[in-house]
Amino acid sequence: MKVITFGEIMLRLQPPGYQRFMQTQSFEATFGGGEANVAVSLANYGIDAHFVTKMPKNPIGDKCIAELRKYNVKTDYISRGGERLGIYFVEKGASQRPSQVVYDRAHSSISTAQPADFDWDEIFDGADWFHFTGITPALGDLVAEITLTACQKAKEKGVKVSCDLNYRKKLWTTQKANSVMSKIMPFVNVVIANEEDAEKVFEIKASNSNISGGHLSDEGYHEVCKQLKDRFGFEKVAITLRESISASTNNWSGLLYDGDKFYKSAKYEITIVDRVGGGDSFGGGLIYSMLNGYDMQDTIEFAVAASCLKHSIEGDFNLVSVDEVKNLAKGDGSGRVQR
Amino acid sequence: MKVITFGEIMLRLQPPGYQRFMQTQSFEATFGGGEANVAVSLANYGIDAHFVTKMPKNPIGDKCIAELRKYNVKTDYISRGGERLGIYFVEKGASQRPSQVVYDRAHSSISTAQPADFDWDEIFDGADWFHFTGITPALGDLVAEITLTACQKAKEKGVKVSCDLNYRKKLWTTQKANSVMSKIMPFVNVVIANEEDAEKVFEIKASNSNISGGHLSDEGYHEVCKQLKDRFGFEKVAITLRESISASTNNWSGLLYDGDKFYKSAKYEITIVDRVGGGDSFGGGLIYSMLNGYDMQDTIEFAVAASCLKHSIEGDFNLVSVDEVKNLAKGDGSGRVQR
Amino acid sequence: MKVITFGEIMLRLQPPGYQRFMQTQSFEATFGGGEANVAVSLANYGIDAHFVTKMPKNPIGDKCIAELRKYNVKTDYISRGGERLGIYFVEKGASQRPSQVVYDRAHSSISTAQPADFDWDEIFDGADWFHFTGITPALGDLVAEITLTACQKAKEKGVKVSCDLNYRKKLWTTQKANSVMSKIMPFVNVVIANEEDAEKVFEIKASNSNISGGHLSDEGYHEVCKQLKDRFGFEKVAITLRESISASTNNWSGLLYDGDKFYKSAKYEITIVDRVGGGDSFGGGLIYSMLNGYDMQDTIEFAVAASCLKHSIEGDFNLVSVDEVKNLAKGDGSGRVQR
Amino acid sequence: MKVITFGEIMLRLQPPGYQRFMQTQSFEATFGGGEANVAVSLANYGIDAHFVTKMPKNPIGDKCIAELRKYNVKTDYISRGGERLGIYFVEKGASQRPSQVVYDRAHSSISTAQPADFDWDEIFDGADWFHFTGITPALGDLVAEITLTACQKAKEKGVKVSCDLNYRKKLWTTQKANSVMSKIMPFVNVVIANEEDAEKVFEIKASNSNISGGHLSDEGYHEVCKQLKDRFGFEKVAITLRESISASTNNWSGLLYDGDKFYKSAKYEITIVDRVGGGDSFGGGLIYSMLNGYDMQDTIEFAVAASCLKHSIEGDFNLVSVDEVKNLAKGDGSGRVQR
Amino acid sequence: MKVITFGEIMLRLQPPGYQRFMQTQSFEATFGGGEANVAVSLANYGIDAHFVTKMPKNPIGDKCIAELRKYNVKTDYISRGGERLGIYFVEKGASQRPSQVVYDRAHSSISTAQPADFDWDEIFDGADWFHFTGITPALGDLVAEITLTACQKAKEKGVKVSCDLNYRKKLWTTQKANSVMSKIMPFVNVVIANEEDAEKVFEIKASNSNISGGHLSDEGYHEVCKQLKDRFGFEKVAITLRESISASTNNWSGLLYDGDKFYKSAKYEITIVDRVGGGDSFGGGLIYSMLNGYDMQDTIEFAVAASCLKHSIEGDFNLVSVDEVKNLAKGDGSGRVQR
Amino acid sequence: MKVITFGEIMLRLQPPGYQRFMQTQSFEATFGGGEANVAVSLANYGIDAHFVTKMPKNPIGDKCIAELRKYNVKTDYISRGGERLGIYFVEKGASQRPSQVVYDRAHSSISTAQPADFDWDEIFDGADWFHFTGITPALGDLVAEITLTACQKAKEKGVKVSCDLNYRKKLWTTQKANSVMSKIMPFVNVVIANEEDAEKVFEIKASNSNISGGHLSDEGYHEVCKQLKDRFGFEKVAITLRESISASTNNWSGLLYDGDKFYKSAKYEITIVDRVGGGDSFGGGLIYSMLNGYDMQDTIEFAVAASCLKHSIEGDFNLVSVDEVKNLAKGDGSGRVQR
Repeated sequence: MKVITFGEIMLRLQPPGYQRFMQTQSFEATFGGGEANVAVSLANYGIDAHFVTKMPKNPIGDKCIAELRKYNVKTDYISRGGERLGIYFVEKGASQRPSQVVYDRAHSSISTAQPADFDWDEIFDGADWFHFTGITPALGDLVAEITLTACQKAKEKGVKVSCDLNYRKKLWTTQKANSVMSKIMPFVNVVIANEEDAEKVFEIKASNSNISGGHLSDEGYHEVCKQLKDRFGFEKVAITLRESISASTNNWSGLLYDGDKFYKSAKYEITIVDRVGGGDSFGGGLIYSMLNGYDMQDTIEFAVAASCLKHSIEGDFNLVSVDEVKNLAKGDGSGRVQR
Repeated sequence: MKVITFGEIMLRLQPPGYQRFMQTQSFEATFGGGEANVAVSLANYGIDAHFVTKMPKNPIGDKCIAELRKYNVKTDYISRGGERLGIYFVEKGASQRPSQVVYDRAHSSISTAQPADFDWDEIFDGADWFHFTGITPALGDLVAEITLTACQKAKEKGVKVSCDLNYRKKLWTTQKANSVMSKIMPFVNVVIANEEDAEKVFEIKASNSNISGGHLSDEGYHEVCKQLKDRFGFEKVAITLRESISASTNNWSGLLYDGDKFYKSAKYEITIVDRVGGGDSFGGGLIYSMLNGYDMQDTIEFAVAASCLKHSIEGDFNLVSVDEVKNLAKGDGSGRVQR
Repeated sequence: MKVITFGEIMLRLQPPGYQRFMQTQSFEATFGGGEANVAVSLANYGIDAHFVTKMPKNPIGDKCIAELRKYNVKTDYISRGGERLGIYFVEKGASQRPSQVVYDRAHSSISTAQPADFDWDEIFDGADWFHFTGITPALGDLVAEITLTACQKAKEKGVKVSCDLNYRKKLWTTQKANSVMSKIMPFVNVVIANEEDAEKVFEIKASNSNISGGHLSDEGYHEVCKQLKDRFGFEKVAITLRESISASTNNWSGLLYDGDKFYKSAKYEITIVDRVGGGDSFGGGLIYSMLNGYDMQDTIEFAVAASCLKHSIEGDFNLVSVDEVKNLAKGDGSGRVQR
Repeated sequence: MKVITFGEIMLRLQPPGYQRFMQTQSFEATFGGGEANVAVSLANYGIDAHFVTKMPKNPIGDKCIAELRKYNVKTDYISRGGERLGIYFVEKGASQRPSQVVYDRAHSSISTAQPADFDWDEIFDGADWFHFTGITPALGDLVAEITLTACQKAKEKGVKVSCDLNYRKKLWTTQKANSVMSKIMPFVNVVIANEEDAEKVFEIKASNSNISGGHLSDEGYHEVCKQLKDRFGFEKVAITLRESISASTNNWSGLLYDGDKFYKSAKYEITIVDRVGGGDSFGGGLIYSMLNGYDMQDTIEFAVAASCLKHSIEGDFNLVSVDEVKNLAKGDGSGRVQR
Repeated sequence: MKVITFGEIMLRLQPPGYQRFMQTQSFEATFGGGEANVAVSLANYGIDAHFVTKMPKNPIGDKCIAELRKYNVKTDYISRGGERLGIYFVEKGASQRPSQVVYDRAHSSISTAQPADFDWDEIFDGADWFHFTGITPALGDLVAEITLTACQKAKEKGVKVSCDLNYRKKLWTTQKANSVMSKIMPFVNVVIANEEDAEKVFEIKASNSNISGGHLSDEGYHEVCKQLKDRFGFEKVAITLRESISASTNNWSGLLYDGDKFYKSAKYEITIVDRVGGGDSFGGGLIYSMLNGYDMQDTIEFAVAASCLKHSIEGDFNLVSVDEVKNLAKGDGSGRVQR
Repeated sequence: MKVITFGEIMLRLQPPGYQRFMQTQSFEATFGGGEANVAVSLANYGIDAHFVTKMPKNPIGDKCIAELRKYNVKTDYISRGGERLGIYFVEKGASQRPSQVVYDRAHSSISTAQPADFDWDEIFDGADWFHFTGITPALGDLVAEITLTACQKAKEKGVKVSCDLNYRKKLWTTQKANSVMSKIMPFVNVVIANEEDAEKVFEIKASNSNISGGHLSDEGYHEVCKQLKDRFGFEKVAITLRESISASTNNWSGLLYDGDKFYKSAKYEITIVDRVGGGDSFGGGLIYSMLNGYDMQDTIEFAVAASCLKHSIEGDFNLVSVDEVKNLAKGDGSGRVQR
C-alpha cells in the first residue's frame, strides 16, 4: 500500500532534558512536521510511505532527507531548492510549566514552493491514500493552491484523502483558515480534529448545554462530529481528546464517527516523555487501521494506542511497530519488561 | 526598584540525572545560595537586583560572577578576596530515595569577610528592599555582626527588610541561632519560615491540640504565625507548606499573615525536576509582589505559583518571567504546549 | 561474614534516557547479572562478598572485574578464559511502553565453563552463605552440573544456600527447568520466587478460588508458599509482589513464610528510575537481614525497602547503605532532602 | 574607555567534535559575529564595550543578550524587533578536510533594521572608538546606509573608526562591495584586511613581481598596504597573514603600516582548536593596544598574540585576558602548565 | 551504476575521545565492516550500492539496516536470521599509544550463513561491479564457499570483481588464507593489498635488495605488484602505503599497476581523527574512479585523496562527496574554511 | 612486592575538551595526586601498591577510595576523618595557550593529619619500597614531621625510599622547602627531579658554561645530578627532561645517574592528550624497573616510555600495562592499530 503525505518538515532544536532555552549550551537536533510524522508512523507499520515537500539544496536539507530515509520514508518526490529549512525550537515543560515552542519557519523552501515543483500525476500513481494537515495550506497562498490541486488530483485518481485540521494561530487568522479550508474540505474523506480546531477553523462548537466548566460532555463531542460531517460530507470524523493534568501527566483518548455511530476508545493516563507529535501519531494509526480494513472500534483503539505510545518516545516521530500498538490496544499497558 | 540581597553563593556540583555520587564521572556545575537565588528571581522579574557577597579572586570566582551577570543580577558590590568559594555537592533523589547534599563550604571568602568589605551606605543608596536568610549570620560571628550592621543601616535608610529563617543544623546550634537571630529580628519587616525553622530557631511551635499525626492543622500554622509576629513585631509572616509524598512528588502551598487575617494559597501537586531553591523562589515571589503593592491574596498566590514553577527547573535559580508566574497563579496549571 | 554468589555477569548496554534502540548513537555501559547484583548489595552493606564466575581474558573482562572491585566485591575466585562476556541490551520503557531487553549472551565464558574452573573447597572456606539464581543452571548442562556440585559442597561445609528461581524462557523450557531445578532444590535453604516463577519452573500455582481477575489474593500467595515449602522442604520462602501500573509506576511489596506464619511487608508506590535488578536487590536485602539474625518481620521489611530503593538507582547494582534501607524500612519514604 | 561595535550576531550551531552535519544528533549552541566578537575581546580586556545590533523579541534573542552580558558586553543599545536571529552552522574540519559553514542568515532582524532603530548620538556619547566590518553594510542597502550614518556621526564626535574589510561573497558581489565600501572608507581611520579582501573589495593587489607561486612576498604585502592607504587615507593599515598548512595546522602573523614604516609580528605555528573568529580577535587586540597607546611594534605583537590564542579556544569569542596575551607576546609560547 | 559488496558488518563500540576501555562509562555506537564501508563510500558518490550480508532478526539488526539506509546503501538483498550481529570494540590511540581493537564477532549471523541465503542471480542482475575483502572467506568454510560461488556467478554475468586482501590473523592462519584465497583469485579483476597482506596471504614479498631498514623501496613495491599480477592475472593491482609516524600522524599514499606501468599518487601527511576504515575508503575511491573510466593517474589520485579524507572523519564510513575528493586530489589540502 | 606511597589525593575537576573555566557547565571528575598516581602506575604493573593518606568520612571520600580500589590500589591504610578532600581545577591548554591549574586544597584532611593517624610499623610490614614527593611535607609542619617519621621507620625496616622533589611554590617558599627537605633527604635512596626542582629546593644548578639560551646542555644536567648525589648521598638520581614546544606538543626524555655513569633515554615527540601526572608516571616506571632489577639503561627507558604513554591518557592516572610500556621502550612508537 502506498501513502502520500504532503507538508513541511522542520529542524527541531531542543535543549537537553528540562533545561530552559536560557540555560542550554546545546540543542538536540531532530526533524519533525505533521505530515512527515504521519509518514514515519506508516513506514514503521510497513506501509510504502512517501513524504512530499520542498527542501533546500544544502547539507541541512541533505541531513533531513537522510533521517527520513533512515526511518524508511520514501523521499523521491521531494523537490530541492529554495532558501532554507524551517526551524522550531522546543523547550520541554514539566509539572505546571508548559512546553514552549518558538518557530523560525518563515521563508522556508516549502512555504515558497511553486506548483511546478510537484508532479501530482506521478506522485499519486498507484497510491491508496493522501494525507495533509491544516498547516500546509496555512504556509502561503501558493501552497494552499498546491494543496487544493493535490486534493483534486487525488479525488480524480481514486485516492482517499485525510486531513488533520491542526489550526495554527501564528500562521493565519481564523477567517483566512475558514475561507481556505472550506474550499479544500469537499475533497477530504476523513477529517481529524479536536474541539479547538473545529471551533477555530469552522466555528463549529457544542451548544451550551453540552459544555460544563469549560469541558465538553460526550454529547458535546458528538455534536461537533455531526456538524463537521453535515457541513462537508466527510466519510469519517475522528476526534482526539486530551486532558492536560500537567505538563507531566495527560489523559488521552479518542472518538470516531461514521455518520451513524460513535466509537469511543479506552482512555490512557500518560506519564509524558515527549508530547509533540502526539496528534500526528493518532493520524498515522488511523490511516493504517483504515487501510487495513479494521472495524470502527478497532480503528479508534489502534489510533489511540499508537498515539499513547508516542508520548513515551523522544522526538516527533512515533517509532513503534504494529505489534507494540496491538499489544497496548489489547489491554496490556502494564509496562512489564519484555525479555 | 532596587533590591539588595546579602549572603553566600556556592559552586553546586551534581551528578547528571539520578546518578549517585559513587557512579558519576562528571558534575554539572551551577551556582546557588539562598540570597543569590532570590536576586536571580527578582532580576528575572525586571527588578534591579544586587547581590552582595565576598568571593575569591580566581577563575572560579570570575565564573560565578559571570553567571550572575548572565541572569542580570548586578555584581558591583561584590567584594573580591579570601581563600575560596564554598562548594556543595547535590545528589538528586527519586521516589523513596531522598536527595543528598554534601557541604564543603567552610573557609569560604564570605565566611571570613570583614566589616570593611562592604560599604552599606553606598549599597543601600536608592534601595527599596533588603533580603537575607538565616544562613548568612550562621556563617560566622563576624558575618553575623555584618548582617546586623546591614539591617540597622537598612532601617536607617528606610529600606524594607525581609528574612527567611532557613535553619541549617550543620552551621550552628539552635541555641546559637536563637541568640543571634533574636538580635537581628527587630530590624526585619517580613519574615519567611516553615514550621521547622520556627521551632528550631525560636522554639515556637503549635500546641498539641493543633498537631495530629505529626502534621499541623491550619490552626497550628496560624498559631506559629501569631507567635512569630507577637514576639518580634513583624509586619508580615509568610509560611511555606511542603508535603513530601516522595522525592518525586510534593504538594506545595503557602500562608501569609498580616497580623489581622490569614491568606492561604492554592495547593499544587508537583512532579519534581529540581527541588533545591524552592523556598528561595517563594521569597523572590513574595518580595516582588510586595514591592508591586499586590493585595495579600495575590501576594501569596504569586509567591506560591513562582515557587511551584521553580520545582520544574534545573538548578537553584528560578528562571521564570512574571507572565509565566501570573498564568499559573490565575489557574492555568494544565501544562499545555505554548506555541 | 563471607558470602559467595555464583553466576553470569554481562555487559549491559543501554541507550541514554528514553531513547529507543533505533535512535541512539551511544550506549551507557554498565555490568549486571542476578548473582553479581546480590554480591554488590551485600558488599555495600559491609559483607565480605565474593562473586564467582568465568570471564574472558580481554580488556572487557578486565573492565568488568575493575567495576566489581570498585563496588568492593571480591573477585579472587573468578576464573579467566573462554570466548566472550555476555551482553544484554536494555531499552528503558516509560508510561505504557515496556522496557525491552535483547540478549546476546550465548557462547559466554561462564556458559562454557568447566568443573575444573572452580575449586569449591577453597571458595567455601570460611563462608556463611551461598547464593545463586535459576539463571545459572539454565546456561548449559555443564553449568547446571557445576551448580549442583557447588550446592552439595555448600551443604557439606555448613554453608546456607539461597536460590532465586528467576525463570528465563529464552534460556530453557519449563520442562528442562523443572527437571534440573528439582535436583538442586533439596540443597537450598531459602528460596525466592514470584508467582510466575513458581508456576513456570514447578507448576505450582494457587487454586482457582484464590485467583480473581488474573491476580492472586493473599491466600493465593500463601498457597504457593506452602506448596513450595512442602515440595522441597525449604526453611524459608520469600515472595516478591510487583504490581505494574505502567513502566513508570509500580507497587512493590513482599511476603515471607517460615513454614509457620506469613509476614507481609509494607507496600511502596514507586516512581521508576531503573527497574532492572529489582528482584536481585530483594535477595541481597534478605540475605543481609538473615545473616544478621533479624526477626521475620524486620527481615521482609529490610528486603522490600532495599529493593524499593533500587528502583530509584540507574544500573543493575543497588548502591545503598544499611542506614538508607533502615530509614525507609522505619517508615521515612518522604524523600526530604538530606542536608 | 568606551568602544562601540555594530553588526550582526548569529546563533552558531556546530556538531560536537569532528562530526559531519550528516552524523550529528545535536548542535553545540554559541553565538558569534565579527563585531560582537570584537566587543567580547575588548570586554575581556576591561574595556567598556558596547555591541549594537537589532535582535528579535523572543527567547532566542533573550538568550543571545544574556550570553553577551555574561561576557561583560554592554547590551543597552541593542534594538529589539524583527523576525529572526540569523543562524550559521559550522562543521569543524581536520587535517585535509576543511571546515564548512552553512549560512541561514537571510531575513534576520539586523538585516531588516531601520535607521530609527539606533540613536547614534546617544550611542557615541563619551565613546572613544567605533568598529564594524565589511559584513555589516553587506547585509542590505538600508544597513549600509545606517553604517555610513554611524561613521559620519563618529567622525563628528571625534570617535576613531576601524573597519575589517571581511569580504563575504555570499552576501554581495565585488562590484557592489566596491561601490558601497568606497563611500564609507573616507570615515575610517584604521583598516584591517587580508590580501584577498583588498583584491575582492577594492581590486588592490600586488604586482606580479611580488607574487610567486600564488603567495605574496613581504614586498607584495607592503604594496597592498600602500595602495590601501593611498586610496583612502587611512591612518593605519593592518594585515593578517594566514598560511593554511591544513585544517589542523596554520601559521599566523600580522603586519602593520602607518604610512611610514612596516611592522611585522612574530609568526606562530598553531595547532587549531577553533579557527572561526581568528580575524576578529586580531581586531580586538589591535583596538585595545591602540587605545592604550602601545607603540607600533607592540601593537601588532599584541594583536597577533591575541588572535593566536583565539585559535585554541572553542567558539567565536576570544576569552583571554590582557595578561595572557602579554605573556605570549613576550615570547612564552611554551604552553607549560600554569599552577 | 550498480555495485554489490558482500561481507560482514559489525556493531562498533568505542569509548568517547581518548578514554581507555577501563575508563569509559559509555560506548559510541556505530557500524562498520570492510565491504559495508565500501558500499557507503560508493553510495555517497551517487552509485547504486547494495550491501549483501546476513543479519539477526532483532532490534540491533534493524538498527544496523536503518543506519545503512540512512547513508543510502541498498539493503534489499540482506538475509535476516542467525544468532547475533558481530561486535568490535575500538579504543582510540594517540601519540605513541596505538588504537586497540577487541573483536567479539564469533557466531555472527553472516559467519553461519548458508548458500541458500543469497540468490546471486537476482543480486547480480544489472550489476556492474562486485567487491569483497579477504575477511569474508575467513569467516568460515561455508562463507568461503559462498564467496567463491558469488565470484563465479559474477564472472558469468560479466560483473567486474575487486578484492581487498585484508589479512586478519585472528580469523585464520596464513596457510588457510593462502589455500582459500588462491581458489578465489582467478575470478578477481582488481586486487587491493598492502605489502603485509601480500606476504601473509600469498608469501609474496620483495627481494632483499629492495628492502632497507624494514621498509620497501619503490622497486620493492613494484616487485610485489608484479608478482601478484603474474601469479593470478589481475587486470590491476592497487597498493596502499601507510607510514605510521605515531597514532596521531600518518603519511598516506598509493600505487596502481596495470601490468604495464606504475602510477604513484601524491603523499599526504595526515593528522588522524579516525583511522579505522582508511583502507576501505581507498577501495571505494578506486572502484568509483574505475567505474567512471578515469585514467590510471586520476584513479589512484582519487582513491588516495578519498581515503586521506576518511582519516578526518569519525566512524568507519567515509562520508565525503565526489566534489570534496576531487578538490583534494586537485591539490587543495589547505583546509581553509568553506563559507 | 609491596610498595607504599604517602601523600595527598584530590578531586580533579576539569571542563570537557578545551573549554575554558568561563565556558563550561560541567566538570569531568577524576582524582589525582603525585603519590596516588605512582600507586596506580604500580598497581597496573601488578605490584601490591598501597596508598596512605587521610580522607574525610563523607561520600566524596568514599568515592575517591572506590576509584583507587577500581584501579587495584590497596586502601586499607587510609585514615578517615578531617574536614574535606582537597580539590584542584584543571583547564586544558592547547597550542600556545597553557593549561591552568586552580588549587582549592587548603584545610584538607591530609593537611591536618596527626601522627597517630598512621601506624607505620604495620604499614611497612613486608614492604619493599616507600615513595613520596616534595608536596607531602609542604602540606604543613605536622605532615612534614609525619613524612620524616615514615622515612626513618622505612630505613629501620630496610624499605627503599624514593622521593620526587616536585617543588610547589603555592605551598611553601624555597627557604622552607630547603630546610624541611634537607632533613628528610638523608633517608632517601632514589631522588627524582627536574632542573627547576633542584634549583628551587636546594639551590643546585649548572654552572654558566653549561647553560646556553636558558637551556642546559647534557653536561649541565650531569652537573646537577652530581651535586644532588654529592650533597645527600643518594644511590640514584633520575632527571626528567621536558621540552615544551607548545601545550600540544612536547619532547620528553630522561636521565639516570648512579654515581658512576649517566644513562640517557630515547627522546619522544609527544602529541599531548593530558600532560598532568606525566612526572608521576615516570616515578612509577622507575620504581617498577628498579624493583624488578632492570639494568640502568632498561630502567630509564622503561620509566621514560611509561611516562611518554601517560601523555596520551586522560586523567592523572597512567593506565598502561607492563607489556604496553615494553613495546614502546623496545622502539615501537608507530601507533599502528592493535587488532
